[in-house]
Amino acid sequence: MAAAMTHTPPSLLNEPAEERLLLAHGDGGILTHQLIQGLFQKYFRAPELMALTDAAVLSGAPDLALTTDSFVVNPLFFPGGDIGKLAIAGTVNDLAVSGAQAKYLTAAFILEEGLEISLLEKVVASMASTARTAGVSIVTGDTKVVERGKGDGIYINTTGLGLVRKKELGYHRIQPGDKIILNGGIGEHGLAVLIERNQFRFSESIQSDCMPLNALITPLLDQFGTDIKFMRDPTRGGLATTAKEIALSGSCDLWLEETAIPVRDEVRGATEFLGLDPLYLANEGKVLTIAAPERAAEIVRFMHQLPEGKDAAIIGEVRIGQGQVFLQTPLGGTRILDMLAGAPLPRIC
Amino acid sequence: MAAAMTHTPPSLLNEPAEERLLLAHGDGGILTHQLIQGLFQKYFRAPELMALTDAAVLSGAPDLALTTDSFVVNPLFFPGGDIGKLAIAGTVNDLAVSGAQAKYLTAAFILEEGLEISLLEKVVASMASTARTAGVSIVTGDTKVVERGKGDGIYINTTGLGLVRKKELGYHRIQPGDKIILNGGIGEHGLAVLIERNQFRFSESIQSDCMPLNALITPLLDQFGTDIKFMRDPTRGGLATTAKEIALSGSCDLWLEETAIPVRDEVRGATEFLGLDPLYLANEGKVLTIAAPERAAEIVRFMHQLPEGKDAAIIGEVRIGQGQVFLQTPLGGTRILDMLAGAPLPRIC
Repeated sequence: MAAAMTHTPPSLLNEPAEERLLLAHGDGGILTHQLIQGLFQKYFRAPELMALTDAAVLSGAPDLALTTDSFVVNPLFFPGGDIGKLAIAGTVNDLAVSGAQAKYLTAAFILEEGLEISLLEKVVASMASTARTAGVSIVTGDTKVVERGKGDGIYINTTGLGLVRKKELGYHRIQPGDKIILNGGIGEHGLAVLIERNQFRFSESIQSDCMPLNALITPLLDQFGTDIKFMRDPTRGGLATTAKEIALSGSCDLWLEETAIPVRDEVRGATEFLGLDPLYLANEGKVLTIAAPERAAEIVRFMHQLPEGKDAAIIGEVRIGQGQVFLQTPLGGTRILDMLAGAPLPRIC
Repeated sequence: MAAAMTHTPPSLLNEPAEERLLLAHGDGGILTHQLIQGLFQKYFRAPELMALTDAAVLSGAPDLALTTDSFVVNPLFFPGGDIGKLAIAGTVNDLAVSGAQAKYLTAAFILEEGLEISLLEKVVASMASTARTAGVSIVTGDTKVVERGKGDGIYINTTGLGLVRKKELGYHRIQPGDKIILNGGIGEHGLAVLIERNQFRFSESIQSDCMPLNALITPLLDQFGTDIKFMRDPTRGGLATTAKEIALSGSCDLWLEETAIPVRDEVRGATEFLGLDPLYLANEGKVLTIAAPERAAEIVRFMHQLPEGKDAAIIGEVRIGQGQVFLQTPLGGTRILDMLAGAPLPRIC
């Protein structure tokens, strides 16, 4: 896990330079973007796909949003969640940040020969319970089995269909002066998975923040309407990578204030010990909100009333620019943040 | 690959008897049904899922259909197709047989570290070309990468969203006397994959029948309306397994006439040589249609005019019964057909 410290020339985003796939092509950082823009978008040319948002918004009556995610997290169970909970929450959240209410989910399993069926049952029960919490129905599914050594226990794809409730979210609505709000501490999911995978021992247990966010996002959008300009969940690649994506697609600069970014003490301790940067660690229960400056404080107070937003804070603002992210450090310095690049932490979701 | 020759007691369908997952849990036969009914339906209880159709029909305005499939076919390329073509055609066909016009597809990739990117590009190009043929847009996607040995090159999930054009299709509409129509020869996909995988040499090349069927099914439903009662694509588990599913869910018996079932000469030759039963081999360009008897001959003539239906034939009829499938052999005998069970042919789609 390394944070890129230098700015990536835009040309790097244009075509895959590698001949063979690296693990880092799946980390949500620069190589993932190269693969999407250099290969998938070269062939799949639907305008909905070109928008590169978390969900495709399909214009019609009613407007629908469609999103897909495969989950390959390793290990399957970790403090605070499991692959089943993650598979529901992740897809519900991708719809929620797109202004859509998740209604229907599909669930497709790729299972490895020899898997204990009792373990599969635990995962399925967790999916059902998380779906109930989030108020979504799993309406269709698929099961494939691959030979031993050709999978890793359980891979799950969930695809979500939602009704678009707010159409006013989008990169085009971000303006200089807008405030950047985060609903709580960063790095918890990535760290919890990493610790579980490596069986590190820390005095305090680190729990993944994995949870559906629609109970926070729906009332927020109802309450603040067009004063909320844009939302995104900073998952793979962490807060820094998501901020960079927003800056590039929104044609602006994002200025983040390091001391304002919520980081739980135990996360700070463990990341310092392990030499990791929480800005690049995955979150699965966080939403980055860009809002009109005059309502930002009120939005934070509103979030504080809900369990999913109790540690919400304004962490920065949008300025005129060309796609840079700047982190203002406590000592008065400025660090340029780029997308995740280099040593990856694979299979975090 | 073995055909089950005996009737499965209904109790067998109720709960998984095995403690660990077998390859046969993924073959579309008895064990797959056990897993779905004994485990997935125990936890996921949406009425749309309970219907066990190829796509979930979501009532609303307009009515939508949603279907999901993961593709893990091995090898990735085979005569007549590849995993990309299959991933589009399979999902388009699941919507088409549900009376829905495929509109939007999602594409999610699980890729193995070390995969040649040029190979991925071939698959993506094939997906794009098949999607164009079928008239569907790929609107959103996802990419995950797993370590070497934790995948097998490329796994693809496609989820399809369609507009329901005909609501009059369903098990409940099947009646004694209805005719069973098939649009062409069976066993081609399963055999093509098996031959490619094992590098068998036959004098005549066997091509997979893999193709989108909406250009056949849409005009058919337009032309014959409610006289078409039910449609299903006989994929995993082959014609016999699909017939058994229909008989069980439709609470009727299906009588098939062996000499009426189209089998290409080269398929017949190769299956006899290899000791396989084409009734249990997967198809990826076939649709089983159940129709009112007075229109059946006309439907077949209509199919003959289209390339996807040029070898169409009436292959049997529905009779009063409790879920049995009978095959009338040329010598006047009757063979009971059950779902695929026993030795599986894994990863055919």
